Amino acid sequence: MNTLIEHATIVTLDEAGRVLHDASIAIAGAEIVAVGDIPPTFSADERIDAGQRVVMPGLYNAHTHAAMTFARGYAEDLPLDRWFNERIWRLEAGLTPELVYWGTQLAMIEMIRGGVVGFADHYFHMHEVAQAVTAAGMRANLAWAVFGGEEEVGIAIRDTVPFVRAYDGAAQGRLRAMLGPHSPYQCPDAFLARTAAVAVREGIGIHIHAAETAAQVQDSLRRYDRTPIELLAHRGLFETHTLVAHAIHATDVDLAVLAQKDVNVAICPSTHMKYGMGVPRLPEMLEMGVNVALGSDGAGSSTALNLWRELRLAVLMQRQARADATLLAGDTPLRLAACNGARALGFERCGMLKPGFQADLILIDSAAAHFQPQHDIIANLVWVTEPGDVQDVMVAGRWLLRRGRLLTLDEAEVVAHFNAQVQQLQRRAPQGPLQRYAVGESL
Amino acid sequence: MNTLIEHATIVTLDEAGRVLHDASIAIAGAEIVAVGDIPPTFSADERIDAGQRVVMPGLYNAHTHAAMTFARGYAEDLPLDRWFNERIWRLEAGLTPELVYWGTQLAMIEMIRGGVVGFADHYFHMHEVAQAVTAAGMRANLAWAVFGGEEEVGIAIRDTVPFVRAYDGAAQGRLRAMLGPHSPYQCPDAFLARTAAVAVREGIGIHIHAAETAAQVQDSLRRYDRTPIELLAHRGLFETHTLVAHAIHATDVDLAVLAQKDVNVAICPSTHMKYGMGVPRLPEMLEMGVNVALGSDGAGSSTALNLWRELRLAVLMQRQARADATLLAGDTPLRLAACNGARALGFERCGMLKPGFQADLILIDSAAAHFQPQHDIIANLVWVTEPGDVQDVMVAGRWLLRRGRLLTLDEAEVVAHFNAQVQQLQRRAPQGPLQRYAVGESL
Repeated sequence: MNTLIEHATIVTLDEAGRVLHDASIAIAGAEIVAVGDIPPTFSADERIDAGQRVVMPGLYNAHTHAAMTFARGYAEDLPLDRWFNERIWRLEAGLTPELVYWGTQLAMIEMIRGGVVGFADHYFHMHEVAQAVTAAGMRANLAWAVFGGEEEVGIAIRDTVPFVRAYDGAAQGRLRAMLGPHSPYQCPDAFLARTAAVAVREGIGIHIHAAETAAQVQDSLRRYDRTPIELLAHRGLFETHTLVAHAIHATDVDLAVLAQKDVNVAICPSTHMKYGMGVPRLPEMLEMGVNVALGSDGAGSSTALNLWRELRLAVLMQRQARADATLLAGDTPLRLAACNGARALGFERCGMLKPGFQADLILIDSAAAHFQPQHDIIANLVWVTEPGDVQDVMVAGRWLLRRGRLLTLDEAEVVAHFNAQVQQLQRRAPQGPLQRYAVGESL
Repeated sequence: MNTLIEHATIVTLDEAGRVLHDASIAIAGAEIVAVGDIPPTFSADERIDAGQRVVMPGLYNAHTHAAMTFARGYAEDLPLDRWFNERIWRLEAGLTPELVYWGTQLAMIEMIRGGVVGFADHYFHMHEVAQAVTAAGMRANLAWAVFGGEEEVGIAIRDTVPFVRAYDGAAQGRLRAMLGPHSPYQCPDAFLARTAAVAVREGIGIHIHAAETAAQVQDSLRRYDRTPIELLAHRGLFETHTLVAHAIHATDVDLAVLAQKDVNVAICPSTHMKYGMGVPRLPEMLEMGVNVALGSDGAGSSTALNLWRELRLAVLMQRQARADATLLAGDTPLRLAACNGARALGFERCGMLKPGFQADLILIDSAAAHFQPQHDIIANLVWVTEPGDVQDVMVAGRWLLRRGRLLTLDEAEVVAHFNAQVQQLQRRAPQGPLQRYAVGESL
């Protein structure tokens, strides 16, 4: 299938940051073959008139727990320890594969409508997630969360590598899979070291949480005489493609380690701010060349899976913290969500509109009143766009959303199944708190 | 015209914070006559089935320069002094009544679509704003911005009181009007005192900027030995209904003054954060009983006029600054935008859904995937809602938006006229900076 999108404002986010007006982009199969100058030999099966619309790369959600849509609005206005112990772990005690299946589909509807083309998922019952993503046509990097203890949710530890082998590269390359040890504060130290050794030996990646709170860092220093980032480095977890979620409380040494080891970092501004967890050192990380991407985290903390919100908050939280209006200027926020996101997920030829890259792109209605005037289309994209402005979404050359209509997911069916599953889940939740999170002075 | 809205989830935001399910609300003319228990005598001309929708009070934008949509994206990534001198005042040098007329209409389209029912406008050529608001059916409080010098934009100082007299209470009470001295840093001290005296004598209100930056406070202390808030109090500006925009850098004494004098404060979180201006002391202000409302500020700074964003940022900026996830919990953010906003604008019987209050209300689609599940409808409204979720808007009993369709404004016509005006404006802009903002160490 060859598609030609014409008369568009094309925001390429390529290395030169090119913006083309009244321009065309040609797609053959899953790939972009031309941007701007279309070869006369290109023959289109489908022509799209994108006048008064912007075409740009889709966004990549670099850290989420997609199925946790079931916890949306369930644990608000609480500090992190109470959020875990009193609410989230109680609800998760009744988790089933079915809930994960429908919860992930609900999340994908929200993400696709918001211009997200891929996501890094860190959760449980990941066979169901793989099925759901394959059918929906999104791109995803799947990590089965494990704690390294006797009991895991839905998987034996020895099956995590076969899980990765089964799905890494599946769905015509739209799926990647990695190992998902939860975090240095939840996993035994020896387990982290074994995970790293296996990952390096098998050539697979790791997706993990670290340095979310100051208390976690203090606790790690007390127990190991190392920060969580230093500990992960020392245990060998950065010797492969590693995606670290949060990394808020990074020391100067930590930053140098992250840069030197090419670690990918996913910050989650909504969650960081909403739970008062701290401000990641984003300007320094970018300055030092760390690949920083953006995550929505799960809807249980951020309530919404809206990458436009995350890319703006990434800027606002820094400008507030440093009283500097010039930070993270221009198209930087879009690059965090697009190019950096794709790279964090392990999709190297995604996140820019250029020949040879995958056709993961979105069309945004720029005719609406709130998109006028267009002194600076980049500023409008960064500071104006909301999910309601996204009209079309293409992943690997296949349309998932056209003129606001979902093509691969049935919203009414998903909502009905999902809500039925959530009702059952609530009935299963135990009464008291499950006291599993106890870090430093936070308890 | 009598309207009955049935089968709704009704978020009243009344004193008891009542949320009703599968409930009705009855409207007669401009007024709500019943919520929940509908008297059998009520006869409806129009019945609305609001199943799977939330009915709640509309939002009030308590500080904006609506027409400044013309500067959207024109002055990004700059500190406040350069924002003023190099960009905004240059563009404003070519301001015309026509641009204000069309720019305000563009802003109203954006606001209505986002569930905003009223706004406090502080700008120039306000006759045009009054016309535009009257026709569009919104509620507004209009203040003609003046600097107190020899030249004003579009008005002679002596005509500002007649302007207020002409419009205060107009459009069946949907318009209020107040005096609009710009700020203590732009207006001569003696002019502020005269303004206060006139306002008190004539029984009219004042809308003014103050304490936006630390430098302004330092400068005021140096010149007057008083903070900007103390200066305004001392000159008598708080002896009437006063709306102070920003008030970011308020001292303990300032807070006590604001509380004691019943001053209304409009914070503008997007602008505060984007320009690194500081964090207003919102928890203290609320604790002390100050009526704090939310403003989008002009699109020249915030880029968007989205009160959902402002109400979330109001929370997030505090939680970040104080590392406390419990601040501003529950429906507080909605109350800032609804009840407190209405009160700041001088509309006493607005901002809650209860009998005797004006029928300023909005309907939100709660059937969409991203609104599921509904563990806590308040959390969903606060943390999920974007303008795209607002389906219907009623002001004073009149529908301005129905199922996403604007009834009082022609979007295509407004966009065309507005963009033509903006093109002319750019051609008129002088080349060099206009060096009028010079406060403390910021220059």
